[in-house]
Amino acid sequence: MGLVIRNAVKEDCSKLLELIKELALYEKAPEQVTVSMEEFVDSGFGKNPVWWAFVGEFNGEIIGMSLFYIRYSTWKGRRLYLEDIIVTEKMRGKGIGKELLDHTISYAKENGFSGMMWQVLDWNTPAIDFYKKYDTNFDGGWINVNINF
Amino acid sequence: MGLVIRNAVKEDCSKLLELIKELALYEKAPEQVTVSMEEFVDSGFGKNPVWWAFVGEFNGEIIGMSLFYIRYSTWKGRRLYLEDIIVTEKMRGKGIGKELLDHTISYAKENGFSGMMWQVLDWNTPAIDFYKKYDTNFDGGWINVNINF
Repeated sequence: MGLVIRNAVKEDCSKLLELIKELALYEKAPEQVTVSMEEFVDSGFGKNPVWWAFVGEFNGEIIGMSLFYIRYSTWKGRRLYLEDIIVTEKMRGKGIGKELLDHTISYAKENGFSGMMWQVLDWNTPAIDFYKKYDTNFDGGWINVNINF
Repeated sequence: MGLVIRNAVKEDCSKLLELIKELALYEKAPEQVTVSMEEFVDSGFGKNPVWWAFVGEFNGEIIGMSLFYIRYSTWKGRRLYLEDIIVTEKMRGKGIGKELLDHTISYAKENGFSGMMWQVLDWNTPAIDFYKKYDTNFDGGWINVNINF
């Protein structure tokens, strides 16, 4: 298939933000996306990047992404935190999510992370079933606490 | 009171790891702390630090800490992720946790973060009550997914 997984570059940011907004809509929280394009570009490709991403291209068009940052776990050390893994709706069910996740896992292994972690909504059964195919541990009972400035 | 909040330095690491193990015991998961001292020191004070911390000293003795890293939220931008806030058991109930949290909030505000976030176990009522005194949003329904390499 015409799928290519590659590192994201600055020029991809507008398309990546589109995918992020598509996921927020699926997660029933589109109004929560308040990040600006300028902040998004600067934090990924400015002087001090804090996130990195892989994109999935199908016949030259970006149809998915895996975006991550470095988490520090005081229990496990450096972990890759998978912030978002997204495949645009019309391209789901073709194994593209698996290619993106496998690519990200390989990257984390090759770069000395002790493991990876991410979060999934408890009602998102398709995603949970997908993650269960991997050697995953599920860990509930946590509440996220946020302060917005 | 003889409380000083200051930036953590490399020489504090051994004491910080003791506090981390004390918290893991309280959270009923002491066996989960597998990070080595070498990894801990290197990731905080090596060439590419990925965590930072404040320590609370009372009469010259370290009795608490607040340890954090930079999270990237694709919804909100750069956030301070408070990995651990710990006050050693015999010093609890004296307002030291509040001093540490206030200091961390000020730091995050002064350094351009869009906000802070952390997690709390759903049975940890004393901690939840403490966080409710702040302008916090609680957000449940998430499952943490981990892959350990």
